[in-house]
Amino acid sequence: MRNIKLIIEYDGTYYHGWQSQINAVAIQDVVESAIRKITSEVVKVTGSSRTDVGVHAYGQVANFVTCSRIPADRFSYALNSILPDDICIKSSSEVDRDFHSRYDAKGKKYKYLILNAGSRSALLRNRAFHVPAALDVAYMEKAAEYLIGSHDFSSFMASGSSVKSTVRSIYEVGLKKDGDLITFEISGDGFLYNMVRIIAGTLVEIGQGKKSPQSMCEIIDAKNRKCAGKTAPAHGLYLVEVYYS
Amino acid sequence: MRNIKLIIEYDGTYYHGWQSQINAVAIQDVVESAIRKITSEVVKVTGSSRTDVGVHAYGQVANFVTCSRIPADRFSYALNSILPDDICIKSSSEVDRDFHSRYDAKGKKYKYLILNAGSRSALLRNRAFHVPAALDVAYMEKAAEYLIGSHDFSSFMASGSSVKSTVRSIYEVGLKKDGDLITFEISGDGFLYNMVRIIAGTLVEIGQGKKSPQSMCEIIDAKNRKCAGKTAPAHGLYLVEVYYS
Repeated sequence: MRNIKLIIEYDGTYYHGWQSQINAVAIQDVVESAIRKITSEVVKVTGSSRTDVGVHAYGQVANFVTCSRIPADRFSYALNSILPDDICIKSSSEVDRDFHSRYDAKGKKYKYLILNAGSRSALLRNRAFHVPAALDVAYMEKAAEYLIGSHDFSSFMASGSSVKSTVRSIYEVGLKKDGDLITFEISGDGFLYNMVRIIAGTLVEIGQGKKSPQSMCEIIDAKNRKCAGKTAPAHGLYLVEVYYS
Repeated sequence: MRNIKLIIEYDGTYYHGWQSQINAVAIQDVVESAIRKITSEVVKVTGSSRTDVGVHAYGQVANFVTCSRIPADRFSYALNSILPDDICIKSSSEVDRDFHSRYDAKGKKYKYLILNAGSRSALLRNRAFHVPAALDVAYMEKAAEYLIGSHDFSSFMASGSSVKSTVRSIYEVGLKKDGDLITFEISGDGFLYNMVRIIAGTLVEIGQGKKSPQSMCEIIDAKNRKCAGKTAPAHGLYLVEVYYS
């Protein structure tokens, strides 16, 4: 029995998120089905992050246990030859028998793309949040810096979620504008449900001048979802990397 | 009667190229059909460039003549509301009655994307040419510079094409590498059929060391399609901009 770790890239547009569920095809189902084809085993693939419908990934991490004798690094080639073209395995490797992609994750990095242009984009449809109103990126940058550090991020958690603790540590944030495209990056030890999308939605309202950059502190302090901005759409979000010790 | 100029962005993946033809849906058909819906007129839309199946555009230019009283700049909004999400109008404006998007074009700029990575990419499928073998970008840059100036580009024209002259002037070339992604940009007064794709294919062979950077001069001088590299796939190509005086 070996434990195999996969790094997975996908375009989430045509799937019902990462996690397997009844009556909808999830990315996990497709990966499990591909593994079954090459190993003849029914395996359960554990993902580090349950990305929502429409969310993309450059580096989702997942692991599964197998009796197959396929060399660990060959799984990526074998799986890529049968996976649909909107899902691919960037790498496969053998890890400790007790490695768990979700429980062992020490942190994650996400990216959120905003297309700030008058007209929508054909090439970035399903890939970036289209905001036609002018955005002040300097305001957004200033606001984003208040997120760094350990805070109770209750204001940035989808209502109805339940977790033991709502405190998370944000390591780094970055905002850059390249033509019409604004890229927001954020890394931290963990993220609450919809946290990055609510932060992105709040940053857009700050960029539009509806809220001040300083209001980010007040929103954090309020510990109330109603104080933050709208949840930005899923299709602008990318899981970039998952960190392990 | 007014002449309306459109700047069009599209993802060419699901269309049979720009130009209307029997038994296949082309981007021109879809745009003409959208104009018919909003003006109740049967119009012919003339494009600057007959992009092939799978080729994308950030700035295809097209024009059409209409009796409609819709303000010129409103055409983009009206059309975007009914066009499929993989085609959009970046701008619409009124131009001289004798403006012709193809005959009046003074030059064009294209971009070609190469994904130089071991594994394929889910997010760049249909958007970049995947080359797993290592590429030396410095070699490719050196070779690309030989393209600048006026040359007979017969070696870079799909065999069987017929044109009055095979001399074209290249104004500028650029190559940059960002992570796994190599972007090649080229602008000139015009391009022969498949010219950018054959140049891209030749640059890839030079990057792999199959040909020397200096061989680009010899290939130009040979005026023989057989001397150049393979035609790189359509899905890496983007029509970026069309220049008018």
